[in-house]
Amino acid sequence: MSWVDSARGSDFPIENLPLGIFSEAKGRRRPGVAIGDYILDLCAITDLLDESWREDLEQPVLNGWLARGQGATSELRERLIEILTDERYRDDVEAQLIGQSEVRMHVPCLIGDYTDFYVGIHHATNVGKQFRPDNPLLPNYKYVPIGYHGRASSVRASGEEVVRPNGQRKAPDADAPEYGPSRRLDYELELGIWIGRGNELGSPIPIGEAGEHIAGYCLLNDWSARDLQAWEYQPLGPFLAKNFLTTVSPWIVSAEALAPYREPMPPRPSGDPQPLPYLDDAADRERGGLGIQLEATLTTEQMRRSGVAPHILSRGSADAAMYWSAAQIVAHHSSNGCNLQAGDLIGTGTLSTDSVSGLGSLLEISQGGKQPIQLANGEMRAFLEDGDEVTLRAWCEADGAPRIGLGECVGRVVPAPAL
Amino acid sequence: MSWVDSARGSDFPIENLPLGIFSEAKGRRRPGVAIGDYILDLCAITDLLDESWREDLEQPVLNGWLARGQGATSELRERLIEILTDERYRDDVEAQLIGQSEVRMHVPCLIGDYTDFYVGIHHATNVGKQFRPDNPLLPNYKYVPIGYHGRASSVRASGEEVVRPNGQRKAPDADAPEYGPSRRLDYELELGIWIGRGNELGSPIPIGEAGEHIAGYCLLNDWSARDLQAWEYQPLGPFLAKNFLTTVSPWIVSAEALAPYREPMPPRPSGDPQPLPYLDDAADRERGGLGIQLEATLTTEQMRRSGVAPHILSRGSADAAMYWSAAQIVAHHSSNGCNLQAGDLIGTGTLSTDSVSGLGSLLEISQGGKQPIQLANGEMRAFLEDGDEVTLRAWCEADGAPRIGLGECVGRVVPAPAL
Repeated sequence: MSWVDSARGSDFPIENLPLGIFSEAKGRRRPGVAIGDYILDLCAITDLLDESWREDLEQPVLNGWLARGQGATSELRERLIEILTDERYRDDVEAQLIGQSEVRMHVPCLIGDYTDFYVGIHHATNVGKQFRPDNPLLPNYKYVPIGYHGRASSVRASGEEVVRPNGQRKAPDADAPEYGPSRRLDYELELGIWIGRGNELGSPIPIGEAGEHIAGYCLLNDWSARDLQAWEYQPLGPFLAKNFLTTVSPWIVSAEALAPYREPMPPRPSGDPQPLPYLDDAADRERGGLGIQLEATLTTEQMRRSGVAPHILSRGSADAAMYWSAAQIVAHHSSNGCNLQAGDLIGTGTLSTDSVSGLGSLLEISQGGKQPIQLANGEMRAFLEDGDEVTLRAWCEADGAPRIGLGECVGRVVPAPAL
Repeated sequence: MSWVDSARGSDFPIENLPLGIFSEAKGRRRPGVAIGDYILDLCAITDLLDESWREDLEQPVLNGWLARGQGATSELRERLIEILTDERYRDDVEAQLIGQSEVRMHVPCLIGDYTDFYVGIHHATNVGKQFRPDNPLLPNYKYVPIGYHGRASSVRASGEEVVRPNGQRKAPDADAPEYGPSRRLDYELELGIWIGRGNELGSPIPIGEAGEHIAGYCLLNDWSARDLQAWEYQPLGPFLAKNFLTTVSPWIVSAEALAPYREPMPPRPSGDPQPLPYLDDAADRERGGLGIQLEATLTTEQMRRSGVAPHILSRGSADAAMYWSAAQIVAHHSSNGCNLQAGDLIGTGTLSTDSVSGLGSLLEISQGGKQPIQLANGEMRAFLEDGDEVTLRAWCEADGAPRIGLGECVGRVVPAPAL
């Protein structure tokens, strides 16, 4: 039990201890660990930590630290548990706690590459149905963990405003496209995977070792302009429809903290092919499922003004959505020799469940815009309007383990730049 | 005229002066400028340069220098011309020239993001024909400079070996895919664009200013595994088929050095739509064409052993291939607010001309593998075999200006890792 009272019952009890990068007004960016309502400034307690850690912990990004691999994170975690539970440290350390509301959180790594996958099979099916009602999933889906490269430069931490993008969009009955503000702005509820130890170019990561290359997880909102996407995406995939912004929750929740909530991967439906050997691992089948509960809510400008509670867009879980595990994602990504590096970010793709209450995007919820939904205050939404704020949350619960949370991933839409 | 004798007639006369990053055995990485057969170590002549430049020139990558914009590069260029032509500097400076064959060249920037475009209209048409004989170009092609994100971590400088990737490939008549070495390994002849000054997230670069954000150009080989690509690319685009390696020539040939060879953009064929206003600029129409000659050659293991001259795969030119200009690429990329950063790399896409002698990939040359070509020594090739080496070269010639070159972009294929 931590001597930090607010830890119990929060997203960040002593069992979580996620790392992040924060700054105070005019202060430098540096690593901290979340405990209850606070952040513990790691640079302020280096005399309590292993001296050899200092080089990588006194940095404005966590790349160097994550490159050390899961062993280092585990040792740091163990030491932090000691410090935050033993009353003897309390006097010294309590002074180094800063209220989370007092600091600004940043993207925790310098992201070398950001890749987005598409492992949510219900999302892939729902989206596919809008284009190919009789044949929603393409033939490769159950063999290939489909992914594509995204934009690293426009990944931002929770709270960044969402500038509505301008872009080319073409109405079905129009002769030519126009350039202007997206009219079909959407969110996508995803998990993010932070890479720890990397691999050398030309040396794939075997599936049995893939889990060790994962430092931790976060929430990820893959903002999407559906009208730009529909017009641009063939033949090379989404580009400007996505790369104007990707928002992540700022805390790296470690693979170790999530271990008590791991589950078996759901059995493949009868008739589905088994994964090819380079993607197949008994331990991953047993423990590859992520028992993470997911939620997306919407608050409009009008709802904020009138004090109406957020509208719940989606509630689901990662294990009910993911056809491929995180380890399969990592093994596949490197299977051609592609080198992953510490601090790389990988999105899972939209994590919709097979229930109407578990759809992770408005494209699915409003059936491509054809069925706008009514919010609690009577407003209607097919896609996001200026002033709308989307909040993603995630948490884990299991027998014999307390609830831990991933924190929040928030973004509010602001108008497009004038043309 | 430079006092460096080898400058005349080489790729690197005094009119070129491209920057790159080099190292000697056990030495640190640092910037140099190419002159004739030599590289001039900029860190060794900082006392001859503006003191304020030192901070960004004494670095292992050129990102900081490129972020200063074209003005700084122009001033450095002017000063280097003075130093390398005025005999008074010769005694001091000659000692700082290192033979290019003595050093190792590196990727000149820490690449934040690498994007690959598809502006070679003949390439897009040739590839499209293999899938859709009657309708090779998709309806968006003449409105949208099509692009997609590539992998920054696997960009390497000329000379890096090309490890044949393993991956999923499915024969048309097979029930299921297999994982194994690519059997359809290909090269793609492209130009690379290095971004100089960037833009803020949410602030598009207007077409009229786009050219100022380009630091320079290089050659780029977008190695491609066509069998992996065919199986994986739908619906989100190429991924493992491309991200195992991208090779660039190591020299950043500045926009200013290329200025004498700029040409009007070819007029759009009658019936083609005019670019939307955000992509349309009179000055770019007049001077947006890149008068760069391109060549790709192949040397097989057997040819090397028997001393046979390289086989010319392709000879063409950038201006005969590009439907969209470099400025249009940059303006489009940022048109949704996506932020470009100094040191970002953008590929043009394969630059095939409309002639059979100007095809920039084996996919086109061998018509999807159906028409293998015979090499000078009688060997046949549909795609690349282990031991094959592809060399890309480019140069510019114009009335009243000497020939300048972009250097070489070389890669030799080595066998796939054992399964």
